[in-house]
Amino acid sequence: MPELSPAAERRDRPAEPATRFVYLGPEGTFSEQALRTLPAGERGIRTPARSVPEALDAVRAGEADAALVPLESSIGGAVGVTLDELATGDPLTIAREVVLPVEFVLAAGDPIPLESVRTVAAHPQAALQCRRWLAGHLPDATVVDAPSNGAAAASAASGGADAAVCAPTAPPRHRLTVLADKIADHPDAVTRFALVTRPAPATEPTGDDLTSLAVYIAHDRVGALLSVLMELAVRGVNLTRIESRPTGERLGRYVFFLDCAGHVAEARVGEALRGLRRICADVRFLGSYPRHRLLGGDGDGADAPVPAPPGLSDPDYADAVAWLARVRDGALS
Amino acid sequence: MPELSPAAERRDRPAEPATRFVYLGPEGTFSEQALRTLPAGERGIRTPARSVPEALDAVRAGEADAALVPLESSIGGAVGVTLDELATGDPLTIAREVVLPVEFVLAAGDPIPLESVRTVAAHPQAALQCRRWLAGHLPDATVVDAPSNGAAAASAASGGADAAVCAPTAPPRHRLTVLADKIADHPDAVTRFALVTRPAPATEPTGDDLTSLAVYIAHDRVGALLSVLMELAVRGVNLTRIESRPTGERLGRYVFFLDCAGHVAEARVGEALRGLRRICADVRFLGSYPRHRLLGGDGDGADAPVPAPPGLSDPDYADAVAWLARVRDGALS
Amino acid sequence: MPELSPAAERRDRPAEPATRFVYLGPEGTFSEQALRTLPAGERGIRTPARSVPEALDAVRAGEADAALVPLESSIGGAVGVTLDELATGDPLTIAREVVLPVEFVLAAGDPIPLESVRTVAAHPQAALQCRRWLAGHLPDATVVDAPSNGAAAASAASGGADAAVCAPTAPPRHRLTVLADKIADHPDAVTRFALVTRPAPATEPTGDDLTSLAVYIAHDRVGALLSVLMELAVRGVNLTRIESRPTGERLGRYVFFLDCAGHVAEARVGEALRGLRRICADVRFLGSYPRHRLLGGDGDGADAPVPAPPGLSDPDYADAVAWLARVRDGALS
Amino acid sequence: MPELSPAAERRDRPAEPATRFVYLGPEGTFSEQALRTLPAGERGIRTPARSVPEALDAVRAGEADAALVPLESSIGGAVGVTLDELATGDPLTIAREVVLPVEFVLAAGDPIPLESVRTVAAHPQAALQCRRWLAGHLPDATVVDAPSNGAAAASAASGGADAAVCAPTAPPRHRLTVLADKIADHPDAVTRFALVTRPAPATEPTGDDLTSLAVYIAHDRVGALLSVLMELAVRGVNLTRIESRPTGERLGRYVFFLDCAGHVAEARVGEALRGLRRICADVRFLGSYPRHRLLGGDGDGADAPVPAPPGLSDPDYADAVAWLARVRDGALS
Repeated sequence: MPELSPAAERRDRPAEPATRFVYLGPEGTFSEQALRTLPAGERGIRTPARSVPEALDAVRAGEADAALVPLESSIGGAVGVTLDELATGDPLTIAREVVLPVEFVLAAGDPIPLESVRTVAAHPQAALQCRRWLAGHLPDATVVDAPSNGAAAASAASGGADAAVCAPTAPPRHRLTVLADKIADHPDAVTRFALVTRPAPATEPTGDDLTSLAVYIAHDRVGALLSVLMELAVRGVNLTRIESRPTGERLGRYVFFLDCAGHVAEARVGEALRGLRRICADVRFLGSYPRHRLLGGDGDGADAPVPAPPGLSDPDYADAVAWLARVRDGALS
Repeated sequence: MPELSPAAERRDRPAEPATRFVYLGPEGTFSEQALRTLPAGERGIRTPARSVPEALDAVRAGEADAALVPLESSIGGAVGVTLDELATGDPLTIAREVVLPVEFVLAAGDPIPLESVRTVAAHPQAALQCRRWLAGHLPDATVVDAPSNGAAAASAASGGADAAVCAPTAPPRHRLTVLADKIADHPDAVTRFALVTRPAPATEPTGDDLTSLAVYIAHDRVGALLSVLMELAVRGVNLTRIESRPTGERLGRYVFFLDCAGHVAEARVGEALRGLRRICADVRFLGSYPRHRLLGGDGDGADAPVPAPPGLSDPDYADAVAWLARVRDGALS
Repeated sequence: MPELSPAAERRDRPAEPATRFVYLGPEGTFSEQALRTLPAGERGIRTPARSVPEALDAVRAGEADAALVPLESSIGGAVGVTLDELATGDPLTIAREVVLPVEFVLAAGDPIPLESVRTVAAHPQAALQCRRWLAGHLPDATVVDAPSNGAAAASAASGGADAAVCAPTAPPRHRLTVLADKIADHPDAVTRFALVTRPAPATEPTGDDLTSLAVYIAHDRVGALLSVLMELAVRGVNLTRIESRPTGERLGRYVFFLDCAGHVAEARVGEALRGLRRICADVRFLGSYPRHRLLGGDGDGADAPVPAPPGLSDPDYADAVAWLARVRDGALS
Repeated sequence: MPELSPAAERRDRPAEPATRFVYLGPEGTFSEQALRTLPAGERGIRTPARSVPEALDAVRAGEADAALVPLESSIGGAVGVTLDELATGDPLTIAREVVLPVEFVLAAGDPIPLESVRTVAAHPQAALQCRRWLAGHLPDATVVDAPSNGAAAASAASGGADAAVCAPTAPPRHRLTVLADKIADHPDAVTRFALVTRPAPATEPTGDDLTSLAVYIAHDRVGALLSVLMELAVRGVNLTRIESRPTGERLGRYVFFLDCAGHVAEARVGEALRGLRRICADVRFLGSYPRHRLLGGDGDGADAPVPAPPGLSDPDYADAVAWLARVRDGALS
């Protein structure tokens, strides 16, 4: 699936069948917007899905080549349904991540004053991200749950609600008037999306990659999570994110979603993965892919790619392998 | 607030003003059901709140003595809004936990056959917990989001939907007919609720308590989460739950919600808390309270109370304190 | 050097050149006694050396096939000169260990009463191991340092001292009379010896082996020793002994001599060694060899061979390697 | 015993009884030299002891106020007998450390050429420290063991040996001629001595102190040494030295001598000590005392005093104690 790799985009290639994408619909969602930031996504066939499970099942069934679904937002946290779907069922792989700044507008069918807005259609996540703005500017309006940002816009267009919280791309599509823009409470808020495919070899390491895992700890072992983190730490593998999700069996049984800095092709990540495989009840590899960095950034360097710590680069691993081979051969000098 | 402690319930006491409770409403929610499992909740004044923030703010403002809100479910995971509300704003304390088996029924205004159900009103969490049953028995029905289980029942009663996924307590209240019961996918599924009050000294240790914390790790320290777990492990404090939530600042900034076995009044928990206070960007103590064990249990012993490991009981701590005092006095023999 | 392996001793083989052994002399030392417990040592050519460095240099120079030298005693601790010699200079390998119960006798040229013993010749280690006996039975006698147990016996024979602390094998050889036997303070005291050869592949794993290492930690890293122990612990490799020796450069610079349970041919030991190689300033492999267990033992089980912990056996390692290969190939299902 | 504290030396005080010191004799040893670097040692009564046990027993019996004994050398390592004596018997305390550069000279009764030296009297430690010089300059001479450096000099004076390896202070005392000076192999070699008293409160913290411990690990716990190091690491207590000594019971049973940066009066050292007390079979506190830094140093900064890590200073501990008290009182805001 070369279309999906960032490297492929840079090469001139002869025509080939357009890639078939699904995304969490309906049209006008941030997922569609994220998909279109990818050249292959802009060129390919884009079909909306009604839910994350529907999108991922289309990929599993071969009806689509890749699905673009939300993974987490800096406000609402992990998108549980996406994580749950990735952790169970036929294996899937995250081929790329896309990080998108979160921007919301308040839009209505007509240019009405804010004072006359009594009902606002909004996806619960969107309402959450604009909570302070709504409380400050529309303290008396009722927020009506909408199943998606696109549906919220449609609701405002059809008169189902006086106004809608939606993406900046929605008003032109639905012929809405923007009553207020940049209404998200956190100006730096972002949402992170995953482009998910059937299992395939990971793209080449770029030197600034992430590796995602779903880890089922052995729940009857005291300190099992500590052991998991030690397996990573001893190999110098940095954890950039950890999410716990219940396994559904009973309270206190979790699967942990880990994002680690590094690529499965790198020796230290490989050894850490082997270690997790040995000590965990189960480990599901969810993909190694280039880290998506937003242009501009915030200049504090916290997100700069972290080189392998001393002694933990691929050459260090190769040296240790060669040394052990000599030791085992009795050739120590 | 002696009414809220389990010990108080066992004593005969003269009349005193009824405790004012709020719960996540509307009437008929699992939160109301959980509240009524408490004798004080059954006796007291119970007022529904429209949202978790509204319920907790009523406690903060002194308009209620305690709020009963959902904390996590064994299927859907943490209830993000509750965690977020506990981690910010004026401090609150978890005085008790209530664990309730999750049971759902499918109910309708009339005793119609399943085949004729086209639309089902359901709270998204409820729909998630009955997902397999719905897919198997109502494959063609459309699930319509309802803002609460109570609202779903009301929607079926008013004809807004053909049927509703709701709690077993809802049909009598809304004059609905139960079309199918025990429709939750996991028969052992439970939801965990918290009874939240303004800060107050914790109830006495019972020997089987939990302590809840919100921990902000120092994000610029490599291995900060590992350090947090080591502070606990070195004092023999077992982690029973860990949830990550974004702080909202940016991706990769988390607050961790930890539940530990033990009580803040115990020496090893106290020392671990002091350690966290020193190394973390911030720690918020959310309460020590008796662990709620469901009768019957599942007999595998995994949930039995774990005594303090050798060398980590309160007498061991007291011995070490006395020994160090002798050492510092130069009285070693 | 097949003569030196325990397996070889059990096979019938045609005549081959006798193995040339050196041992820490002079004749009559415990080193000679330890060498003669080995069938190959009993059959081979045995030459005493005046010092441990002389013995080991004879092996390095090819003048001897193997050297039998003391490694540590349960009373006096590590034999520093042996460790220092193994850690520096041309590499050598420990091919076997021999553990010998420590027994001392007090012997004299004539059968004199204890009261008339005024001077006792003793090697300082021997005097240390019989300290309480000497203080109790010969409180007024002066202990004269002898450079070896054999020399002590010779001194008593020549009249240089009234009596000698020596091995039970010495009196017949020096025509001495035993005045008292079993005079060592600890009846279970043992000395551990190493049979040292030029580098050669280790003998086959027996399931109950030890691996010896000399590890130079990176002295400018805080917690460097902790890191070393973590590399072992994460792979389930048990440390059975740790000795620190100064490197001679300055105070606070150490080389650590580690004995680990397991064999270099085992996957978990191999991976731990590679980890040490990466994080340490230097690692010198000193050999993998069968653990020597004294018959009888003390029955408390503490010394029983420890099987690899769950998840850390060779098959577990092989499974993890195969799994990672599938992951890297994109073949996850 | 105010005479022994560094602060006391700086004050003018009225006459008081002279302090009675013992040191590892005979006269002319490095121990005597070390004692005389202390003003109180120069002023006080100095009595040589024939052995380290004799010196320490004199203190235990009240016959002396303090004993000056060798602790370790940068070449020969720990002085086992001193460690063993400190770890057993009635408790003693290290009140000060003294670090002395090691310097050796070759001296003889007459100014003879090196070529005519056939026998050299030397204490084994001294011979070890001058090993390369002796091998290079006196390759054919026989080294004769002497029980002390003073005895070696006496042997050369009496004609028992052609020459002696001894301290630079010995020749004038024994009317010897120096044949060669600075013959130690390592020009930066030092020996570290301890001034040992009966138990007494430690001197005031200076901000650059060491704390010495003897730690008996619970030998039947896997990873017991790792646990010990974790107790220190979690409190940010740096280990500057670790020595293992056999307990004498059997192979594999050790007592560890630890030197940590910091003073028992500091909160983080105190908490770490309490932690060790809880998890170890036994802990013996051996003293907190100012670190002795040689003037000049080697300028690489490795020995500079290390301030408490962030979050681990005394004020940080005090803050955490106060915070926990508020938490336990239910006063969280």
